[in-house]
Amino acid sequence: MEVKHKLLNFDNMVIYQNDEWFNFSLDSVLLANFVTINLRVKKIIDFATGNAPIPMLLTYKTHAKIYGVEIQKEVYDLGVKSVKENDMNKQIILINDDIKNIKQHFESDTFDVVTCNPPYFKIKDDSYMNENNIKNNARHEALLDLNDVLESTKKILKNNGIFAMVHRPERLIEIIEVMKKNNIEPKRVQFVYPKEDSNSNIILIEGIKNGKPGLKILPPLYIHNNDGNYREEIRKMFEE
Amino acid sequence: MEVKHKLLNFDNMVIYQNDEWFNFSLDSVLLANFVTINLRVKKIIDFATGNAPIPMLLTYKTHAKIYGVEIQKEVYDLGVKSVKENDMNKQIILINDDIKNIKQHFESDTFDVVTCNPPYFKIKDDSYMNENNIKNNARHEALLDLNDVLESTKKILKNNGIFAMVHRPERLIEIIEVMKKNNIEPKRVQFVYPKEDSNSNIILIEGIKNGKPGLKILPPLYIHNNDGNYREEIRKMFEE
Repeated sequence: MEVKHKLLNFDNMVIYQNDEWFNFSLDSVLLANFVTINLRVKKIIDFATGNAPIPMLLTYKTHAKIYGVEIQKEVYDLGVKSVKENDMNKQIILINDDIKNIKQHFESDTFDVVTCNPPYFKIKDDSYMNENNIKNNARHEALLDLNDVLESTKKILKNNGIFAMVHRPERLIEIIEVMKKNNIEPKRVQFVYPKEDSNSNIILIEGIKNGKPGLKILPPLYIHNNDGNYREEIRKMFEE
Repeated sequence: MEVKHKLLNFDNMVIYQNDEWFNFSLDSVLLANFVTINLRVKKIIDFATGNAPIPMLLTYKTHAKIYGVEIQKEVYDLGVKSVKENDMNKQIILINDDIKNIKQHFESDTFDVVTCNPPYFKIKDDSYMNENNIKNNARHEALLDLNDVLESTKKILKNNGIFAMVHRPERLIEIIEVMKKNNIEPKRVQFVYPKEDSNSNIILIEGIKNGKPGLKILPPLYIHNNDGNYREEIRKMFEE
């Protein structure tokens, strides 16, 4: 069912989503907060943008032009609707295409920042089910995998441009390999923990195209208190 | 000056060191705590063992035979003296050699666990000074670098054997590359932070020879409270 959510901490920003597909997620908020966007940034692109939460959230930290690319038409349509209702059409442009075609839309080496909240899971026969394709495509690497994300990033990002992604720590080793292979040097990592004394379940990683080696591991971020409520720093990012 | 330290939490275990070279460090205690040693472990080896803190600490968690290899004679001599005074000669055997010669001492694929607290810093002309060679060799990759550590580990470790190392997070990307190149799959990582809200300054990493991909990021470890004192969990490991 299509529903309309309001984000209290973002001037009641509206986001349309379909609960049968997936919900607006904390991961997008974490990534939008995490990514380094300096004053000189002019062009940002969000790969696998879904219903466009990241482009919309980024309008709160930059005046840059923000593009979002989403392959699934139904999900793209929700993004277009949300962007319009929030009156963000001047800053955000959504494209309904496969990011592997990115060169048909833009010239090489033209973006300052690439962000991505990609599908997290490898496809296994037992986990990829056909019942709800839209949801599965957002969660599993059916239409888009890590290699695709980084190859397209390499093409489109300026020298010294920034790539930022949210993903799962289980796949950190592979993420680093694929980033390095595409000349994106990992520079900042933050691990997110569901609560104290738990293993990390989300990783935020940022790299620089043709950057020098040298990694910073930021202070950890905890999502919940031991009572199960969001922690203060998370509630500040995300409240609806 | 040669001094004799007592570690209160380890039955007054004695460790000889020379303050002009380096001090018994928290890093060794962290690594000895971190490394996975199960009941079936029979043979452990510590590369770049220095004055043997890791072999001595590991006697508190295993009955396995523990070997330590140290290239610098003066430092090796201190280790021998400490091991003897603690009456650990039956369990610990120290070897004064370069780990690159490891195959002259042991057969391939014979160890269950390899530990290492290696020199952390790359050699640069401005940082590697000749004034105190013993200290510099322990801190800089003059006699031993990451490649050497992992190549020797690959030779000596059994299939599914464990490699555990303490190092600096700045070099995590390179550490992962060198581990992978030598068939040691990273499996467990813990980041250590000097205090809350600081970036990590120590990394603990464990891998399995020919292990399957899939990484766990353990809960973070903080060293100090905001008042500058050791935190409770650290004091439990380490008190003198």
